[in-house]
Amino acid sequence: MADPRFFERRGPFSLEFLANAVGGELDPGDDRTTLIRDIAPLNLAGADDISFLVDKRRASNFADTTAGACLVGRGAIPPGPSGLRLVRVDKPYLAYIRLANLFYPEPALEAGIDRRATIEPDARIGVGCRIDAGAVIGARAELGERCHVGPHAVIGSGCVLGADCRIGAGVTISHALIGARVRIWPGARIGQPGFGFVPGARGHERVPQLGRVVIHDDVDIGANTTIDRGAAGDTLIGTGCIIDNLVQIAHNVTLGQGCIVVAQAGISGSTRLDDHVVLGGQVGLSDHLKLGKGARVAAQGGVMRDIEAGGVVGGSPAVPIRQWHRQTLALARLARRKGD
Amino acid sequence: MADPRFFERRGPFSLEFLANAVGGELDPGDDRTTLIRDIAPLNLAGADDISFLVDKRRASNFADTTAGACLVGRGAIPPGPSGLRLVRVDKPYLAYIRLANLFYPEPALEAGIDRRATIEPDARIGVGCRIDAGAVIGARAELGERCHVGPHAVIGSGCVLGADCRIGAGVTISHALIGARVRIWPGARIGQPGFGFVPGARGHERVPQLGRVVIHDDVDIGANTTIDRGAAGDTLIGTGCIIDNLVQIAHNVTLGQGCIVVAQAGISGSTRLDDHVVLGGQVGLSDHLKLGKGARVAAQGGVMRDIEAGGVVGGSPAVPIRQWHRQTLALARLARRKGD
Amino acid sequence: MADPRFFERRGPFSLEFLANAVGGELDPGDDRTTLIRDIAPLNLAGADDISFLVDKRRASNFADTTAGACLVGRGAIPPGPSGLRLVRVDKPYLAYIRLANLFYPEPALEAGIDRRATIEPDARIGVGCRIDAGAVIGARAELGERCHVGPHAVIGSGCVLGADCRIGAGVTISHALIGARVRIWPGARIGQPGFGFVPGARGHERVPQLGRVVIHDDVDIGANTTIDRGAAGDTLIGTGCIIDNLVQIAHNVTLGQGCIVVAQAGISGSTRLDDHVVLGGQVGLSDHLKLGKGARVAAQGGVMRDIEAGGVVGGSPAVPIRQWHRQTLALARLARRKGD
Repeated sequence: MADPRFFERRGPFSLEFLANAVGGELDPGDDRTTLIRDIAPLNLAGADDISFLVDKRRASNFADTTAGACLVGRGAIPPGPSGLRLVRVDKPYLAYIRLANLFYPEPALEAGIDRRATIEPDARIGVGCRIDAGAVIGARAELGERCHVGPHAVIGSGCVLGADCRIGAGVTISHALIGARVRIWPGARIGQPGFGFVPGARGHERVPQLGRVVIHDDVDIGANTTIDRGAAGDTLIGTGCIIDNLVQIAHNVTLGQGCIVVAQAGISGSTRLDDHVVLGGQVGLSDHLKLGKGARVAAQGGVMRDIEAGGVVGGSPAVPIRQWHRQTLALARLARRKGD
Repeated sequence: MADPRFFERRGPFSLEFLANAVGGELDPGDDRTTLIRDIAPLNLAGADDISFLVDKRRASNFADTTAGACLVGRGAIPPGPSGLRLVRVDKPYLAYIRLANLFYPEPALEAGIDRRATIEPDARIGVGCRIDAGAVIGARAELGERCHVGPHAVIGSGCVLGADCRIGAGVTISHALIGARVRIWPGARIGQPGFGFVPGARGHERVPQLGRVVIHDDVDIGANTTIDRGAAGDTLIGTGCIIDNLVQIAHNVTLGQGCIVVAQAGISGSTRLDDHVVLGGQVGLSDHLKLGKGARVAAQGGVMRDIEAGGVVGGSPAVPIRQWHRQTLALARLARRKGD
Repeated sequence: MADPRFFERRGPFSLEFLANAVGGELDPGDDRTTLIRDIAPLNLAGADDISFLVDKRRASNFADTTAGACLVGRGAIPPGPSGLRLVRVDKPYLAYIRLANLFYPEPALEAGIDRRATIEPDARIGVGCRIDAGAVIGARAELGERCHVGPHAVIGSGCVLGADCRIGAGVTISHALIGARVRIWPGARIGQPGFGFVPGARGHERVPQLGRVVIHDDVDIGANTTIDRGAAGDTLIGTGCIIDNLVQIAHNVTLGQGCIVVAQAGISGSTRLDDHVVLGGQVGLSDHLKLGKGARVAAQGGVMRDIEAGGVVGGSPAVPIRQWHRQTLALARLARRKGD
């Protein structure tokens, strides 16, 4: 399925091995020793490939597929071609992920420090790290085991990274404590001073930004995203948060566990998201708000008030999502009546 | 016109040479051998300069100009100073571009590979390329002839670039096949994994991102813009697309030929734009949409439904542009009636 | 208060010294020689610390604080603990900034040019500059005294920077004249060509971008922000402007003095902001607009018309802020009536 210029394929694997890997069930008559060489979408898969039916709208693709095998759910399934071997699983999409990772595992990290990296003598680099050309590791910085610091990434003085972090090319990090297995994609900016200014006698006076950025384990931070450090106190990103590209997170923001922030959203200073909050693309949050557990904001929403746990809002200014839909309809009706 | 610290001027050129270069017509009595030294706006041009009248609102500037010559359209023109030599052309703005490029051509590329660049031994670098300090070219990457890779740009393993590409400082490219004459401005991020996560047993599970970014010829990509690679299949940017700064293009998006995407717009996963679609600044598109040929979205529009060919929409959620204007007016009237 | 891994603390200072530093008044009986070791928020401060009451909503923190001293306003204050020494000042927040800068001054710049920097022979580097690893300084560029150019920052040929500028890691600057004490945070992109294209015979034709970016003194430019150079003429940023992260400023935009542009706002080509204009987060301005002195746009506002001096607008399309509030209320009422 994947271009061999960019992805290395493993295998082949027996159908039985793959079925076991996903806790799947084969039909009794199927040959468990059949070798499967790749995983591919229904419309592209051939006799040596395993495919996947994860969306019932693909029933016609399923009917016509020439795949050798297919991941399907345990319930009723649409009619497929005769001879197609079925692997019945609880969750076909999770099973697809498992198999895709079997055929195309992430390349193992080749440890080593490029001679063109700049590492301060008192920085501590964990066993098995890879530091690429042009990377800069500041004084007293600490990197856990098996971290990868990409080309030209800059880790500022005193920063701490846990094990197995992946820091992309050209990322800059300062004033930050970062957990394990954190992935930061190219060009993200972590730890620059927050946007704090007050009117003074001679123009705007800078408010000293004396806090940090604290990022917990298993966080993903998108390309060119910016996360400012706290003014007094920290900017906090909870375990398992997933942050997309070009997101702005201002000083002293707190994200609970497992929050999802889609591209180009912005969160103003000191706003707090409880666990599992979801912000759609281009959402904007005012400062000093509280969003309760599991709250959701539809794309482009502009939130000016707190949201209770489980609340779902949309629009700018944001209102409960049903009200937003009603407003949208009411406005369309009003325009028809008045405009025609 | 241009600061000699940054732009090198050619010339002088005879008036006849310039008129011929733009297919322009001089008045019979004018001295075709007059030397013209520069091109400048009406209010700044002097006796040795050629100027341009491209906007009728500049009639008063035209009346007062001290330029030696001026590009004008072939139709009626406002009254100008006596002695001003006119060069009548079909399209004064295109003629301006032609002459500006004559006086200020792009500097020729000086070929050479900086000794501070890092180039893997099996990368293939075309004749006449320039590779700047700190650039990194990965294994098996291929660059066409006369490409310029700016300082600290990173071209990942296996990437292919056509001839005459310009890759700005600090750009990162991975998992990408790129055509000829593509320009990517500083800080753009091409080919990082798309934003694909599904709820798993232990938090969000990453969906493997096994596709590529495929960029056709003559594309322009703005500074700090992000284009993610496909999940299964590719993210595609068609020939001649023009993408501004800070744009987000998610995995598996397809842009047809000649699309224009203005700054800070965002396109969600798998959405398809047909040829010549135009997105205004800060527009957001939902995922899995289809925008027909020549569709246009006004700035800040939020599109949640398909748009037919030639459709023009605005607002969030976006509606046909006339309806949006009616809604805007109706809402203003409603507020006046209720609020006063 | 601040993490010693990232911030170096000065002191201790006598209470009298600190009071004098902020023009503050101590109560007659207080011991002026008491040593104060740090500055901290009310709820974290101990007996050796000075704290600050800048927000009356903190009255309960003030009542319970164990701080040794506290900055307060000169007027009535809420009841505090006995034994707390008060330093009465005109503006407690400005006094806090003063003291925070005393305890945690910005580190002095250590002059020096890293051997891994690339500096063209005819570039002029002022006395006391610090140029970090991987920085690139182009031909004929001029840096004033005591500038700091961070790792991998690229200053293009002919650019001029005044004294005491701070250029962050990975910043790129070209075609720019920059004043004194300008701070540009990591990843900002200054001086790439503006977005100028016109329909030509064979696709979009590029309009030559022959202008510059001119940035006056004491400007602050956020991380990953983009400022394009002018087409013919300059993009201008006035003295003391404060620009947040991920902002887009198009070609030929003019900002007067002391403007504030919050994160992810975008300003289209040739729009002019008079002095002290404030744009909220994610605001978008159309091209060729004029915003009068002190005009303000609420977050996510989309401005399509000029704004007079002192005008305050909100919404998309933006209307006077009171009208926007009325519209919001009217729409909510309309939806209730029609929808239920």
